[in-house]
Amino acid sequence: MQRYFVEPSAITDSRVSITGDDVKHIVRVMRMEAGEEVIVCDGLGHAYRVQLTDLGDTSVQGKIVEILTQSPESNVKITLAQGLPKGDKMELIVQKGTEVGINRFIPLDMARCVVQYDAKKEQKRRERWQKIAKEAAEQAHRNLIPSIGEPMSFKQLMSALDGFDLVVVPYEGEKARGLREVLAEHPDAKHIGVLIGPEGGIADSEIEMALAQGALPVTLGPRILRTETAGLVAATCIYYHYGELGG
Amino acid sequence: MQRYFVEPSAITDSRVSITGDDVKHIVRVMRMEAGEEVIVCDGLGHAYRVQLTDLGDTSVQGKIVEILTQSPESNVKITLAQGLPKGDKMELIVQKGTEVGINRFIPLDMARCVVQYDAKKEQKRRERWQKIAKEAAEQAHRNLIPSIGEPMSFKQLMSALDGFDLVVVPYEGEKARGLREVLAEHPDAKHIGVLIGPEGGIADSEIEMALAQGALPVTLGPRILRTETAGLVAATCIYYHYGELGG
Repeated sequence: MQRYFVEPSAITDSRVSITGDDVKHIVRVMRMEAGEEVIVCDGLGHAYRVQLTDLGDTSVQGKIVEILTQSPESNVKITLAQGLPKGDKMELIVQKGTEVGINRFIPLDMARCVVQYDAKKEQKRRERWQKIAKEAAEQAHRNLIPSIGEPMSFKQLMSALDGFDLVVVPYEGEKARGLREVLAEHPDAKHIGVLIGPEGGIADSEIEMALAQGALPVTLGPRILRTETAGLVAATCIYYHYGELGG
Repeated sequence: MQRYFVEPSAITDSRVSITGDDVKHIVRVMRMEAGEEVIVCDGLGHAYRVQLTDLGDTSVQGKIVEILTQSPESNVKITLAQGLPKGDKMELIVQKGTEVGINRFIPLDMARCVVQYDAKKEQKRRERWQKIAKEAAEQAHRNLIPSIGEPMSFKQLMSALDGFDLVVVPYEGEKARGLREVLAEHPDAKHIGVLIGPEGGIADSEIEMALAQGALPVTLGPRILRTETAGLVAATCIYYHYGELGG
């Protein structure tokens, strides 16, 4: 069943009001009619089966017929702190990361980032990434839209590592300790940070800072992954390890 | 160290001859000079450290200074049989799948494929996918270039399933049996087939045929993955499960 995210304020009592781009999608793309059903999520984790009652040009109204209690969200939350990659790779990272289940993306300004950080441009890009996250969350049948954090400097991230149960850093320089070993040592981790360097990798000084803050460098094996692939692969392994993907 | 694949016939005794596009890459892009070293692979699993001796416009000569014995290849081989997706998604599938370690890709003509199968066009696309696989294998530091099989019909694939120790089919209709359960039941599987449907999914009749041939439908969890993501995620889980990725 088609899934749409609305603002929590768009749900009152048992009525739902859908506005914005989704109206066009429901009326013109899906050509739905009154009486048909969709799933509506408030983006905070609540999902409802909704029967459409009135379809207009600028809004679609519906009534809640069932509160959905089974959540597709993982019990292990992952934040991906991603060194800003070149071109539009961040779009792929957000889309694929959202599909697999990631909760939060933090674009990181790192020593070896090729892109020049530009606050004004980043705001526009961030809006675009948030839109991609919403669409991917709908498509993946998620109840939550991952948040795209404000771009941070590496230093800012370092002072925020306390909020995680575990922070892993896939790093070419780490040859011995595998991700699996680290996860096995943290059976109760509920909020995991994954830190991925940009195309040029993580600078030595950054690895030292991360280590000093308790982050753990790990290897993802002998095959070298591109920056836009590493976070997705690490997150997939983490979900699989904790039984949150494929049983 | 930069890595290049050559035909096995380009390696004789301790001499290596590099021709084709890689010459331009070595001379113009990397601006390498005589005395510098690269890694040369024959695509059959052999890798050598090679010192460049003569750099010309159409060929680069070098001598082998070390035979590399540590292989980055997985002990578990994966073939991804992929229902032909729309647009250029197959390029992403081949590139990312090669990075993670997949050995063979089979483009599949399936009931719900949107693209019209066109033999002439497919030959051109196949050459392009093979080129992408070569470049991704070099970048990922692999010793093998995955092969891109000729496009097959679903029926043809079905008659070839005997060659696998295990064939898994991530399938939305399978709610109970997770990938992990199936892998745990096959601790000695060495060659695993992963069958992924196109955007529209796998048709009921196809699932029935696959089941009859011994393939096992599995769930990858409650979050629905796009066709271009599912194979990569399934392969990542398989490598992780068998200790072939991140320890």
